Amino acid sequence: MTEFDDVLTITDGIAELTDGWVIGEAVNGGVLMSLATHAAADALRAADSHTDAVAFSTTFLAAAQPGPATVETQILRTGRSFSTAEVTVSQDDKVRLRHTATFSDLDANSEPVHLQETPPELPDPEQCAPAARGGFAEKIRLLDRVDIRIDPATVGWAVGQPANDGEMRAWIRFKDGREPDVASLPFFLDALPPVTFTFGALGWAPTIAFSGHIRSRPAPGWLRMRITTRNVIGGLFEEDAVIWDSRDRVVAQSRQLAGVRMPSAPVPADAAASASVPESV
Amino acid sequence: MTEFDDVLTITDGIAELTDGWVIGEAVNGGVLMSLATHAAADALRAADSHTDAVAFSTTFLAAAQPGPATVETQILRTGRSFSTAEVTVSQDDKVRLRHTATFSDLDANSEPVHLQETPPELPDPEQCAPAARGGFAEKIRLLDRVDIRIDPATVGWAVGQPANDGEMRAWIRFKDGREPDVASLPFFLDALPPVTFTFGALGWAPTIAFSGHIRSRPAPGWLRMRITTRNVIGGLFEEDAVIWDSRDRVVAQSRQLAGVRMPSAPVPADAAASASVPESV
Repeated sequence: MTEFDDVLTITDGIAELTDGWVIGEAVNGGVLMSLATHAAADALRAADSHTDAVAFSTTFLAAAQPGPATVETQILRTGRSFSTAEVTVSQDDKVRLRHTATFSDLDANSEPVHLQETPPELPDPEQCAPAARGGFAEKIRLLDRVDIRIDPATVGWAVGQPANDGEMRAWIRFKDGREPDVASLPFFLDALPPVTFTFGALGWAPTIAFSGHIRSRPAPGWLRMRITTRNVIGGLFEEDAVIWDSRDRVVAQSRQLAGVRMPSAPVPADAAASASVPESV
Repeated sequence: MTEFDDVLTITDGIAELTDGWVIGEAVNGGVLMSLATHAAADALRAADSHTDAVAFSTTFLAAAQPGPATVETQILRTGRSFSTAEVTVSQDDKVRLRHTATFSDLDANSEPVHLQETPPELPDPEQCAPAARGGFAEKIRLLDRVDIRIDPATVGWAVGQPANDGEMRAWIRFKDGREPDVASLPFFLDALPPVTFTFGALGWAPTIAFSGHIRSRPAPGWLRMRITTRNVIGGLFEEDAVIWDSRDRVVAQSRQLAGVRMPSAPVPADAAASASVPESV
């Protein structure tokens, strides 16, 4: 059992949210999305139905804390092509998130490829900036478990020279060598620093609503991600993520609406042109 | 009362889905998303909470038919900044859709604008191709109620010369002069023909999961939309939509996962270069 599989384990309807996946004072939302999707798959497996998630949506109602959580599952439909279940994660009788996931057969739904986004050109992982604990990231224990290498061209924010362009690109994988799979993709979709870091807004960006699609089973090896935002309005922004696997296949995509406290005086975009590249973030 | 407000009316938990909003044999999903959001807003208004939708997600479980539908609402949270309700729409004891919507105060959440997508350049509505009933669109009664003017540059599919580029741009408004508002935006987000029409796939594209964000209150007048897809894989595609109002403000955005039956031999992209422009679609 890897640490990630460990946190997905549900016994008698209870998951143990270990403190290894916290960001600040809350359990990472991506871990919770993978947990809820996993619970839905278990329920559908018991009903002899589909077990490959193809779409999910999560509404975050309150932050989850390390400790036990109650996971309740309700099957909404078992169909020929698609099946759907809803999952509620609660702590202390307070609902933390509501999650709806639709399942199908990914082998049937990932071929043929008619159109697909091209993965970004990234320097080798060794040439990228590892996201590591320390400094303002000291409380992000998640960074001990996931290996994130950010494209130096998108990491000016870490040295006070934000690009102000709303785009970050990175390599990502588990540190312990666990290979990516369908169950881990909801987690990876929300594992990078918020894209609003590229505007110098280096605070927590609480997710309000998140929706993800799984488009193909990931091959072993590093994943590549690109996250973007195009609309930062009234303290809210959308973050779009795309993940490619080592075969250059799009394996997952997502969109979330999240909150941000923007710096009052944005750094002009051209100020980033001379940004030096940090050795780590 | 306009026809649109009429279809949103819920009396004793029952909505009457009139046959004016059907596409083929099913009631349009966008109407159902506006109906469900409206029901959630009503429940939160009765609880003295927020009533401006900022995010919603809908899972379509079975097609809805014209006739009465049961609309059940459950408040999941009433908070200081955000409140959330879940809505279930059923017919004949069968769940047709599950919908979760989060509400806030849009006046507080639509200013200031830090970053925003620029609206597409479109010819005047009079120079665009009106989507009208007739031909293959005969069963789309929705087109009697909504005025859609498609950019001629994105409508080659209507004359057998699909651009194969996954992008459509259009003006849109209600035919009866009802102005756009927050309640109608979920409907407009899904009102254009599927973006897969641009690949010559002129069939129904059933939505599996849909998520939308309302970013600002729309000003009166025509709305502009752009819909795109970048990944058509294994019979599934995502469709992203953005809506701008007459002030050039982004007022709503969405992403859905839907199914498509692609033509077996795609028309080469350059075949569209000489496409003639139809007078109507």
